[in-house]
Amino acid sequence: MPSGTPVFDWIIPREWTIRDAFLADHTGGRVIDFRRNNLHVVGYSTPVDRQLPLQEFQEHLFSLPDQPDAIPYVTSHYKERWGFCLPDAQRLRLKPGIYRAFIDSELKDGSLTYGECILPGATKQEIFLSTYVCHPSMANNELSGPVVTAFVCNWIRSQPRRYTYRVVFIPETIGALTYLSRHLDHLRKNVVAGFNISCVGDERGFSCVGSRYADTLADRIAAHVLASMSPNYTAYSFLDRGSDERQCCSPGVDLPVVSLCRSKYGAYPEYHTSLDNLQLVTPNGLAGGYEMVRRCLEALEQNRTLRVNSYGEPCLGKRGLYPTLSQKNSASAVKTMMDFLAYSDGRNDLVRIADIIGVPVWDIFPIVSRLKEAGLISETDQ
Amino acid sequence: MPSGTPVFDWIIPREWTIRDAFLADHTGGRVIDFRRNNLHVVGYSTPVDRQLPLQEFQEHLFSLPDQPDAIPYVTSHYKERWGFCLPDAQRLRLKPGIYRAFIDSELKDGSLTYGECILPGATKQEIFLSTYVCHPSMANNELSGPVVTAFVCNWIRSQPRRYTYRVVFIPETIGALTYLSRHLDHLRKNVVAGFNISCVGDERGFSCVGSRYADTLADRIAAHVLASMSPNYTAYSFLDRGSDERQCCSPGVDLPVVSLCRSKYGAYPEYHTSLDNLQLVTPNGLAGGYEMVRRCLEALEQNRTLRVNSYGEPCLGKRGLYPTLSQKNSASAVKTMMDFLAYSDGRNDLVRIADIIGVPVWDIFPIVSRLKEAGLISETDQ
Amino acid sequence: MPSGTPVFDWIIPREWTIRDAFLADHTGGRVIDFRRNNLHVVGYSTPVDRQLPLQEFQEHLFSLPDQPDAIPYVTSHYKERWGFCLPDAQRLRLKPGIYRAFIDSELKDGSLTYGECILPGATKQEIFLSTYVCHPSMANNELSGPVVTAFVCNWIRSQPRRYTYRVVFIPETIGALTYLSRHLDHLRKNVVAGFNISCVGDERGFSCVGSRYADTLADRIAAHVLASMSPNYTAYSFLDRGSDERQCCSPGVDLPVVSLCRSKYGAYPEYHTSLDNLQLVTPNGLAGGYEMVRRCLEALEQNRTLRVNSYGEPCLGKRGLYPTLSQKNSASAVKTMMDFLAYSDGRNDLVRIADIIGVPVWDIFPIVSRLKEAGLISETDQ
Repeated sequence: MPSGTPVFDWIIPREWTIRDAFLADHTGGRVIDFRRNNLHVVGYSTPVDRQLPLQEFQEHLFSLPDQPDAIPYVTSHYKERWGFCLPDAQRLRLKPGIYRAFIDSELKDGSLTYGECILPGATKQEIFLSTYVCHPSMANNELSGPVVTAFVCNWIRSQPRRYTYRVVFIPETIGALTYLSRHLDHLRKNVVAGFNISCVGDERGFSCVGSRYADTLADRIAAHVLASMSPNYTAYSFLDRGSDERQCCSPGVDLPVVSLCRSKYGAYPEYHTSLDNLQLVTPNGLAGGYEMVRRCLEALEQNRTLRVNSYGEPCLGKRGLYPTLSQKNSASAVKTMMDFLAYSDGRNDLVRIADIIGVPVWDIFPIVSRLKEAGLISETDQ
Repeated sequence: MPSGTPVFDWIIPREWTIRDAFLADHTGGRVIDFRRNNLHVVGYSTPVDRQLPLQEFQEHLFSLPDQPDAIPYVTSHYKERWGFCLPDAQRLRLKPGIYRAFIDSELKDGSLTYGECILPGATKQEIFLSTYVCHPSMANNELSGPVVTAFVCNWIRSQPRRYTYRVVFIPETIGALTYLSRHLDHLRKNVVAGFNISCVGDERGFSCVGSRYADTLADRIAAHVLASMSPNYTAYSFLDRGSDERQCCSPGVDLPVVSLCRSKYGAYPEYHTSLDNLQLVTPNGLAGGYEMVRRCLEALEQNRTLRVNSYGEPCLGKRGLYPTLSQKNSASAVKTMMDFLAYSDGRNDLVRIADIIGVPVWDIFPIVSRLKEAGLISETDQ
Repeated sequence: MPSGTPVFDWIIPREWTIRDAFLADHTGGRVIDFRRNNLHVVGYSTPVDRQLPLQEFQEHLFSLPDQPDAIPYVTSHYKERWGFCLPDAQRLRLKPGIYRAFIDSELKDGSLTYGECILPGATKQEIFLSTYVCHPSMANNELSGPVVTAFVCNWIRSQPRRYTYRVVFIPETIGALTYLSRHLDHLRKNVVAGFNISCVGDERGFSCVGSRYADTLADRIAAHVLASMSPNYTAYSFLDRGSDERQCCSPGVDLPVVSLCRSKYGAYPEYHTSLDNLQLVTPNGLAGGYEMVRRCLEALEQNRTLRVNSYGEPCLGKRGLYPTLSQKNSASAVKTMMDFLAYSDGRNDLVRIADIIGVPVWDIFPIVSRLKEAGLISETDQ
């Protein structure tokens, strides 16, 4: 999408290119060097080449006294600025003197680029997945999002599926606005649930950010899956939003979308610094993030409203579904089956029944299969 | 109802007759004797007459190591087995040697028998009471149920009544299924509330087991009455079900029925052992169970939706309903009367008002009489 | 309104006039003197002039052993009595002997007098304010009510206003019944919210007494304003009622009225004694009561349902509404603006949004102005 294109209330900005940047001392030595870490330059910095005493550069330097070894991640999207970011410890060691600030960048008409992957299913009803591709060098927030989403796409493709999946890889905010503005009617008509996948790579807790009223199918699925995976998960309200649920759940857009996270943006100390790196994001962390998303999609795919075919409790014993001698584990499985049957009254889908009877919905999937085979339950039109 | 009759998803089984049973040692001495306690034989045991070493009998012996002096109550309804039940302390004392197992029983076509008592009232709307008659030698679970129910029937017959009462004495599960299968349309059409009466004879707390969504008139009545009688009563959810509410509240049957208990089946240590006896069940315990059921029926009979006839607070003083000098108890009675009037707006029945204003509904009955006499309230059509 | 007029279920009583009253000892010295404090006479006392030994007067004397220095406030509205009120400490000091009780009063046909002030607004929809004028010598309960209400009237007159204000100064209970009986249809048709203003002069907490189901606009406004002014405010239920909300919220009247108080009648030690005086009621206390009422009216006047005009988050930056560099306070103001926009979806009025996003509604007023000027929000028909 070319720069200058209006998207809702916004306009796609010029594109930024950066080739080199440094702050050099009087000997020409690079004390800050973009080649060592691209966080050293404020995002969207305008070009500069000036020699000045250190004190006159101070307003262009950004560091974090509370995290003296971290390079902060700073951008200036909608106002022209230039600057350098560095660890506070390094900043304090800089000696007075003349320095040269050099940034070889340009801001010019270009384009906003995004990726889109459609995986057709048995129906035209869609599951919408979005993740973002705009935070340079950030591991949890944000490379974890596209990584997990790519693996999720592979899993989706390996499965028979009821729903069509629409997966987008976009820059945050402006990318989401762009995508929504081009597909709003289609999305509003077809999306039954969606997940914004962000910050899914560390090993700390799970969390989700609800939709505006936390009342969509996506909210219900996420709450069930996260509570089942991790009873101490954090349910953030829409007031804690900060990613693309801001656009997806805005008035008039109103998509049934929630954000799925491990440590949510803004809620962990390494956030938006050079410490959000591959010490923080691990294979285990990513696997958990993947598991969370996959469980949500599986719950959506399997979710149905069923009705028991008999009056009164069915006679499970004559079908070999009831143990003739009770034992501890079988008793629990039979209890789940009987509780499931008790609430299979055509009013509740599987996830709602799982919530009522207090088991993970995936414990119900094999029960549904066995009861269907036995002819004891049927799908309702509902 | 003859054996072999289909009832919903089930078939009425053959009838079991037991005449004698024992385990005898090599001298012919009965070490376990059905004549001393009928719990000594596993229910529905098939006939047997074998002589074997003790160790080969072990799989046919049932005892409870945690309750070494209790004979467990064991049945095998839907699989042919035989066995003996005995206190674990006795089992440990059995000496090795040859024993003779003898059970003189038969399983043959017979019938399922139940009792039914209809007490007609002013309307065809029905209150449904059920209790069960199938646990041999069990006092709280279950002779307390039919005993209390019989006394409740006598009380019902002594009272003028709005509702018709349908009272059934049935074997648990198969009896309930049988009765429901024969009267389903009638019950669904006429029953406004029902109570399954079980385990109502000990002196411990009160409890009830709610219907599937705990949203019926019976649930509301039971919750109000039990909370008023005993603030620490236990409100079990339908997930804790285990008696005939399992059938009455199953999908498609959907009767407005809850179970009323003192110590609920499964929730007290003597449950399903020889310790559930007349040490546990007492006249006081039964009287409390009777009181609980009677209070529920009385609340149903008296329950109405009323509307105050004046605008603003009525002038109670000119009718002698307001003390000219406040005193402690009269103040409280006047407060109840005024609160009752404040919520007599045609939206709430008596039980709901009692819940709102925080008094037992039976405190409201005399107030209703006095206000009706004074012409201050009228019944609504609702 | 003349004595004898029926008002709903009541009749306006005779009017009471009191000229003098005393209890004199054998020397003629006035040991209790109405001229020193009008609380010394039981309200509505019939005339008397008798000489008797002290002990025969005891049933006509009222004092409070727990508050020995307080003169109780006692009335006998609907039964003919006479009596004197005095501090218990003084009562204990009275010497035996002959005393003369003298009360020069009369009960005769007269009238009930009330004040009414109508302040027309842009629409015929009304805000109803009532306060009462019947408790002699009581400062918090009750001169604070008319005083604050009079100042509120001045403020209303100084403001442009959407609503018409109907303000009444009436005797409690019989005055409220009188006023309601004469204006019921008009009030039911036009009043959108109302406040009964009582006990608004001390410096202790704020409180309100909800309507019958606490579900009116007035309840919602009062809950929001009081919680925002004072998180520890007391929300009394309708069961704690005791002032004219008793009549305004009675079945069939059903006005959307709540009572606003600081220390509520009956809930502070000085209540209905001579200690409810200008030690207790202070300028600061009255100013807080005034502030509470004014905030409620302002919230009603400003309250609207708005809708954001764009899809997705609006671009605040291009309108100068978003800081180019985040700073602590501006961040919070921007957060409030963005949260406000997120819930400006045509479903919520301002007070509901303020509740959702957790800010006082008055923080939203300037935001609404700025967003309207920027063309970002519009009023809905709703």
